[in-house]
Formats: sequence, structure tokens, C-alpha cells
Amino acid sequence: FKTIILVFWRFLEKAWNIGMNEPRKVIHCIKVGIALSFVSLFYYMKPLYEGVGGTAMWAVLTVVVVFEYTVGATLYKCLNRATGTFLAGFLAIGIHWIANQSGKRFEPIIMGASIFILASAATFSRFIPAVKARFDYGAMIFILTFTLVSISGYRVENLLNMAHERASTIIIGASLCVITSILIFPIWAGEELHKLVISNLEKQAESLDCCVAEYFSVTEDTKTNTKKMLAFKCVLNSKASEETMANFARWEPAHGNFNFQHPWKYYLKISASMRSCACCIESLTSCINQKDQASEFLRKQLSNTCQQVSSSTAEILKELALNMKTMRKSSRIDILIQEKNSAIQELETQLKEVSGLLIVPKGAKNDKEEEKPVVRTGNVIPMVEIIPAATFASLVIEIATRIEGVV
Amino acid sequence: FKTIILVFWRFLEKAWNIGMNEPRKVIHCIKVGIALSFVSLFYYMKPLYEGVGGTAMWAVLTVVVVFEYTVGATLYKCLNRATGTFLAGFLAIGIHWIANQSGKRFEPIIMGASIFILASAATFSRFIPAVKARFDYGAMIFILTFTLVSISGYRVENLLNMAHERASTIIIGASLCVITSILIFPIWAGEELHKLVISNLEKQAESLDCCVAEYFSVTEDTKTNTKKMLAFKCVLNSKASEETMANFARWEPAHGNFNFQHPWKYYLKISASMRSCACCIESLTSCINQKDQASEFLRKQLSNTCQQVSSSTAEILKELALNMKTMRKSSRIDILIQEKNSAIQELETQLKEVSGLLIVPKGAKNDKEEEKPVVRTGNVIPMVEIIPAATFASLVIEIATRIEGVV
Repeated sequence: FKTIILVFWRFLEKAWNIGMNEPRKVIHCIKVGIALSFVSLFYYMKPLYEGVGGTAMWAVLTVVVVFEYTVGATLYKCLNRATGTFLAGFLAIGIHWIANQSGKRFEPIIMGASIFILASAATFSRFIPAVKARFDYGAMIFILTFTLVSISGYRVENLLNMAHERASTIIIGASLCVITSILIFPIWAGEELHKLVISNLEKQAESLDCCVAEYFSVTEDTKTNTKKMLAFKCVLNSKASEETMANFARWEPAHGNFNFQHPWKYYLKISASMRSCACCIESLTSCINQKDQASEFLRKQLSNTCQQVSSSTAEILKELALNMKTMRKSSRIDILIQEKNSAIQELETQLKEVSGLLIVPKGAKNDKEEEKPVVRTGNVIPMVEIIPAATFASLVIEIATRIEGVV
Repeated sequence: FKTIILVFWRFLEKAWNIGMNEPRKVIHCIKVGIALSFVSLFYYMKPLYEGVGGTAMWAVLTVVVVFEYTVGATLYKCLNRATGTFLAGFLAIGIHWIANQSGKRFEPIIMGASIFILASAATFSRFIPAVKARFDYGAMIFILTFTLVSISGYRVENLLNMAHERASTIIIGASLCVITSILIFPIWAGEELHKLVISNLEKQAESLDCCVAEYFSVTEDTKTNTKKMLAFKCVLNSKASEETMANFARWEPAHGNFNFQHPWKYYLKISASMRSCACCIESLTSCINQKDQASEFLRKQLSNTCQQVSSSTAEILKELALNMKTMRKSSRIDILIQEKNSAIQELETQLKEVSGLLIVPKGAKNDKEEEKPVVRTGNVIPMVEIIPAATFASLVIEIATRIEGVV
């Protein structure tokens, strides 16, 4: 019994930590509570109850199902639900009318066949990528409403009246959700995406810096360093969440610094090129694990120039993050790119020099000692060269974004 | 108007292609149609209708919402829905009873407060990762049912009767879904995951082979080659879908070669180490783009041994895929690993030789020609060395899986 309490206590502790770290999640919960309490009012207050009737249930259902964490997701679900309901409702009433005209005998057959065909077709449409991205929820609601309306149409006679009641309650629920989610501490999917990409840029810059520093073992404090070094992993893992956010962001109206049709897909492009950079950093870390194999001498030789390349690259990433924050394109980026390019050139010339140096100690030292460093450093440098290249690509895209998206 | 038809036609064509390529998706659609038609029977047939009454709507709703592509997902939703409904129902009836005891005046207040608090708490619990992975849907249904029951309890007097009807229709709908999804061409999430991991292993093996072959330009047919080379990208991008599938697979009963508690998380580990391999391959491809910079001479020198390393590694991956297919651990893997290790050793000795060779032509040729190849090949080889290491890790995990999971 004691262990159960302990487990429960730990669970509460965890929940508390989540709540403290992200107060906006707590706010979201309170928002849901508020919206639901409002909807319950329809039931508690007599005049309202008589107005909308027993279908107030649909308003509750709408609120619970539709209310999501971000404004974009809520809007997406509301619009999908409304569209799906209306489309299915009209179609069901139309088919019901046709079935009615064709006599008592064929009515159940027509209705059954139409349910089967339309439900299958709508389910199939959910597998088509373009539909899935935007209307997945709508298709589900379409099936639901169509089936409900057509089977209850067979029984209930005052079909139009019912449809009207149901539609009005759904609209009440949906609008309540939209109002609550926009007015009370709104959480915009677009803004979240914006912040995520910026923080990823910063993390990547930091982790690049740390990796190179670690390789040339300038820093001592290994523990915090390893943590920073592995920061790039979030970049690798954030693909799915970025895509959903960009998907929801499309539904959001203009807010803050973002216009209605802010080019969200550029964010995805930036993160895609960041992911390819992160891959390179990942390979770089594996070099760090084997760094004892490289000769001390060579590491010292290349230390300065390598660090220059990586720091200038990191600088570019940071500057990009800053640019995105202020939504303005600064001229400093061009200067930084030039700096980075000259650093790479310097590194290349030094590499040549080093390979010249190698011949001299060759005879003096043993073979193994000499061969390894070439392989090692050879491994590090192309990496460092790849990263700026990829960064450059992301940079070009970024500039395009700023020009198209801001101003 | 013509363009609209054209767009529509293209859309149909696309849908047709999806249907032809993946007939199981079409089957799924038909299954949904069948389940819905069955549920409609409750409405159409008089005796059944009188038995369950107007709440048959809940059965329809359950079928539409719960029916998912894989068995695991359907089971997950069914169990969550049932648990959430019952828990919320009992809690709501309990609170209703308490509110009833405390008099007319406090009743609405108690009910409103309980809705607000419980809805907020349940919403918050959906943010906790452990809850989100397993009971996300259940929490939503909990909120829904609790609100519905407590607000309708305020009006409808025969609460218990209503609860009973609702519960029975939900159970009918859910069991119908489970039966249809298991009996008619079942699509198991676990099997899908299994297949995906196997095909990823094969793709990666192929793409590794192709990359190395391309680097030493043995093959000519570049177009199909590039396609194969980039096959590893699916490995990088499949994280999210693998996680959801593993999540659903946990809910599935024993089927085919899989036991009830098949160690699905090992699949995730294998793919994680495969992803780190894919990162290395990605870096390798960037070397291919710069391969003109390497000297012909050195490329030829290393060509054989490098290809041996990569082909033995690819062989291991293929053997692993085969092992997973047959669910049996073959002794061939150990032999292959030894082969791979000896190939790596050979490559290492050859590298030493090559670096020895380098000194001789050094004076004869110009500096630039000589320096580059070292860097280049230096880059390729550690890559090829990293991949077996990661493969080995995945292999060890794999063996553990086979032992624990298969007997």
C-alpha cells in the first residue's frame, strides 16, 4: 500500500513540475474548464434550456472534442467540424428525400447503400496525403453526421427541425471554443513554431561550438558540456512536431508580427537544412570519442583555425536566430558569411601546410602515429566544411523568407 | 470550368493509384462501411430499435470515432473509451448523489465546480508524457462523459437507466469495431512495425552499398542509383510513425509470430541506432558530391577494401533483416561480423600503406594533388568504420530481442 502512495506521490510531483515549467499548459487547462462551465450554463438556465432543447449535448461534445492547445488546432477542428457537418447534413437530407420518393420498399436499401458507399469513400479520402493534412478531422465528422442524420431520418419525422437545432448547438460550441482560445491567453501555433525554430538555431550553434571545443579539449567542464553538445539532438527529433505546427499555423488569422499567409513552409525548409547540419554534428561527435587516436601535435596545429571556422559558423546561426526574432534582415549576416568563408580558406591553406609538415616527422616517428592524425583531422575538417555549406543553404532560404514574409 | 474537371480528374487518378498500390487501405474502407451498416441495423430493425432505444446514436458515434486503420489503434481507442466512460459515469453519479443530498441551493454550484475542476485536471493529465502515450483518448472521453452525465443528471431523473442504456450501446459499438477489425483482413500495428523495420534495414543496406559504389564510380546507371542511394532518408524520417506503431502494438493480443508482450521497444532501439547510421550515410553522400576533388589514384587504391567493408556491413544488415523475418537467430551473423572486422582491419593496414605511398610521389607531383586525397579518403573511411560500429550496437540489441522475444 505504501508503494502505491509513493508512486502516486511521484506522479503528482512530476505533474507539478510540468505545471511549474510550463504555466501556459495550466492556463490551457483552466481555459477548457471555463469553456465547459459556460456550455453547462445552457443546461442550468431554464430559458436557455428551453430554447435549444436537449441537443445542448452537442454543444458540450463540440467543446470537449474541438478545444485544442493552440489556436490553430482549435480553428482547424472547428472549421472542419462545421464544414463536415453541413456538407453531410445537406447530402443526407437530399438522399433521404430521394429515398422517400422511391417508395417504402427501396428506402432502407437506398439509405444503407448510401451509408456504405459514402462512409467508405470518406474513409479512403483520409488516406490521401493532401486531404489528410487539411481535412482529416472533417472527413471523420462527415461520416459521423451523414450516418447519424440518415439513420435518424428514417425514424424522426421532423428532420429539418432537428438538423437546425443540431447545427445551431454545434455553432454555439465551436464559437465558444474559438472565442475562449483566442481571447484568453492565446497560444498560437505559428508563434510556437517560430520560437521552436529560433531555439533550435541557438541550440545548434551552441552545440557546434561545444563539439569543436571539446575536440580540441580547450574546456574542462565535461558534464555541462556534454549536455550542450547533445543539444543538436532536438533538432533531429523535432521534425514531426514542426510539421503539425506548420499545418495548424496555416489556419490562424494574423496575430502579432505574423500576417495571415506567413510563409510557414519556409520554416520547414530551414529546419530541414538544419537537420542535415545536425547529422554532420552527429558524425563529428563520433570523432570526439576517438580523439585520443589523433596526435597531440596535429590537434594543436589545427585547433585555432578549426575553432575559427566553427565559431564563425555558430555566429551565423546565432545571427540568423536574432534576425528571426526581430523579423528583420540585418546586413551583419553578409559580413559574417564573408568571415566564415575566409576562415575556411585559412583552414584549407593550413591543411596544406600541415600535410607538408607531415613528411618531416615521418621518418622520425613510427608509422602509426603519423597516419592516424591525417585520417582524424581529415575527418574533422570536411565536416566543418560541410556545416557552413548547409548553413549557407539555410541562410539563402532564410533571406528569401525574410524578404517574402516580413515587410 | 475545364480546369476544375482537370483538377478533379487528377485527384481521382491519384486516389486510384493509392488504392492500387495499397489494396489494404481499400479493404479498410470497406471494413468501415460494413461496421457502419451493421450499426445502422439497430435503427432499421424495429425489435432491436425498441430494445436499445434512441441511444443507438452512441453506437454509431463509437464506431465512427473508434475505428482505426490498425487493430492496435482500434483496441487502444475502444479500451480507452470504455474505461473513460465508466470511470466518468460512476464519478458523475457519485457527485450527483452528494449534490442531491446537500439541497437545492448548493446543487448547481457543486456540479459546476466539479465540472470545472475535473475537466481542468483531466486536460492537464493529457500533457504528462506517460499519460499521453497510453490514455490520451481516455482522458478526453472522461471529460466528455463526465460533463454530459452531470449536466443531464440535473434534468433527467432516471439517471441510472440512461447510464445503463448509454453504456450498453457504447459496448455494442466498440465490440463491433473490434470484431470487424480483427476478423476481416486484420492489419496489425505490430506486424506493420515489424515490416517497416525490416524494409528499413534492407533499404539501408542497399543505400550503403550504392553510396560506396558510387564513390568509387563502379556503376554507371546514375539515375536508379541516386534513388537507391537516398533510400536511407526513409530511415531518418520514420521515427514518428514507428513510435505511434509501437505504442499501438502494445495493445494488441498475440497474433501470428508475435506474443502478447513482444518487446516492441527493442524495435525502437534498433531504429534509433539505424538512424545514427543513416546520419553517417548522409555525410557520406556529401563526400560523393565532392569526389572529383579526390585523386583518381587513391580512389582506385582504396576501392577494393572500402567496398569490402561496406559490402560486409550491408551483408550484416541484410542478414539481420532476414533473421527478423524468420524470427530466428542465425549463426551466420557471427561469421559476418568476423568478416566485417577483418575487412576493417585490412582497410586500416591498406590506409597505412597508402600513407606510406604518399611520400614517394610527393616530391614528383604538386602539393594540391597530394593533399586533397588524404583528406578525402580520410573522410570516407572513418565513415565506413563508424557504420559497422553502430550496426554492431544494433546487432547486440537485436540478439537480445530475439532471445527475449522469440525464445
